[in-house]
Amino acid sequence: MADKGTLYIVSAPSGAGKTSLVAALVDKLARLRPSVSHTTRPIRPGEQDGVNYHFTDRDAFVRQVEQGRFLEHAEVFGNLYGTSADWVKQTLNGGEDVVLEIDWQGATQIRKQLPDAVSIFILPPSLEVLAERLRGRETDDEAVIQRRLDGAQEEMSHYGEFDFLIVNDDFNRALYELEAIVEARRLDTSRQSVRLEPVLENLLASRR
Amino acid sequence: MADKGTLYIVSAPSGAGKTSLVAALVDKLARLRPSVSHTTRPIRPGEQDGVNYHFTDRDAFVRQVEQGRFLEHAEVFGNLYGTSADWVKQTLNGGEDVVLEIDWQGATQIRKQLPDAVSIFILPPSLEVLAERLRGRETDDEAVIQRRLDGAQEEMSHYGEFDFLIVNDDFNRALYELEAIVEARRLDTSRQSVRLEPVLENLLASRR
Repeated sequence: MADKGTLYIVSAPSGAGKTSLVAALVDKLARLRPSVSHTTRPIRPGEQDGVNYHFTDRDAFVRQVEQGRFLEHAEVFGNLYGTSADWVKQTLNGGEDVVLEIDWQGATQIRKQLPDAVSIFILPPSLEVLAERLRGRETDDEAVIQRRLDGAQEEMSHYGEFDFLIVNDDFNRALYELEAIVEARRLDTSRQSVRLEPVLENLLASRR
Repeated sequence: MADKGTLYIVSAPSGAGKTSLVAALVDKLARLRPSVSHTTRPIRPGEQDGVNYHFTDRDAFVRQVEQGRFLEHAEVFGNLYGTSADWVKQTLNGGEDVVLEIDWQGATQIRKQLPDAVSIFILPPSLEVLAERLRGRETDDEAVIQRRLDGAQEEMSHYGEFDFLIVNDDFNRALYELEAIVEARRLDTSRQSVRLEPVLENLLASRR
């Protein structure tokens, strides 16, 4: 039995701090790789192709959808987003964990294809804090922020479909909680008994 | 739906460091209570009745067994040990977690009565380190140590019956791993959605 990795799906409303938390988690833990989505949305200043997203045109994206090359895909605010199945499956088969940021619809699609995926929903501490955080960004105008707040409530109404719930009130506490979920799963006897094979052999060897 | 606590069963061979780890875990985490076993073995210097064990005589113990008042009980080296069902169930129903140190046979008995219990097995890093640790105690003579080493291998052969496996090589790492198992379970959506009820109500309230 090989030591297969786990796919973690992280969802949250815009402004809950999901992206910063996942980036910090990937920095902190070994054997955890972030999945880089494909998107048709235009590249923004400061973004790098292959790092933030794989930027692609609409025709190429649609062709890959037709070939069944995506674990999930969706249209958000007029842009297409998707997760390549090949890279995720290869990485998991190689024994590494993968973490993936998506919305609740994407999470639903992924659970159908990879039912062992572990899903985590991140909540802001309150609607008031969420509104402040969205205003604080200053990258979008008020109409976009208003639309995001409405979208956030729609997104949050799906929290019950996720395995774990984290409130991002204190960043370090929320990061610790994300870590605990990943670490605990790694301690599962089915995974540990593969990783610890030499230790177990020594411990259970017949006594001289 | 009430927020029920979880029973954690921790087993390990003698000398794996289980007792120190569980004591440190109880010190560190809120809402986690140690279960104090009943025993017929004589009290040792430094031990306190009701803290280390509930010390009892054989007749009283056997009567409680007959009344079905124990979650598990066993005879080890001629002494009886058991876990009171009433206290554990009351504590779990009150929303607190309980942690319980027992051997693999006790774990088997408990799983039958409380199938939601989470079981954790702690291993020493090697048979050589285990032998050293047992010798280092100097509380028993060589014959007892030898008997314990044999017993340790018998105990360890049951690791596969437990939900989680931890190697106690570095104490702080092992403690962190125990914590992660408890914390992760508390983040479970079924538990969190009870604890976070007011937060969820605020977040999902109809917008003005």
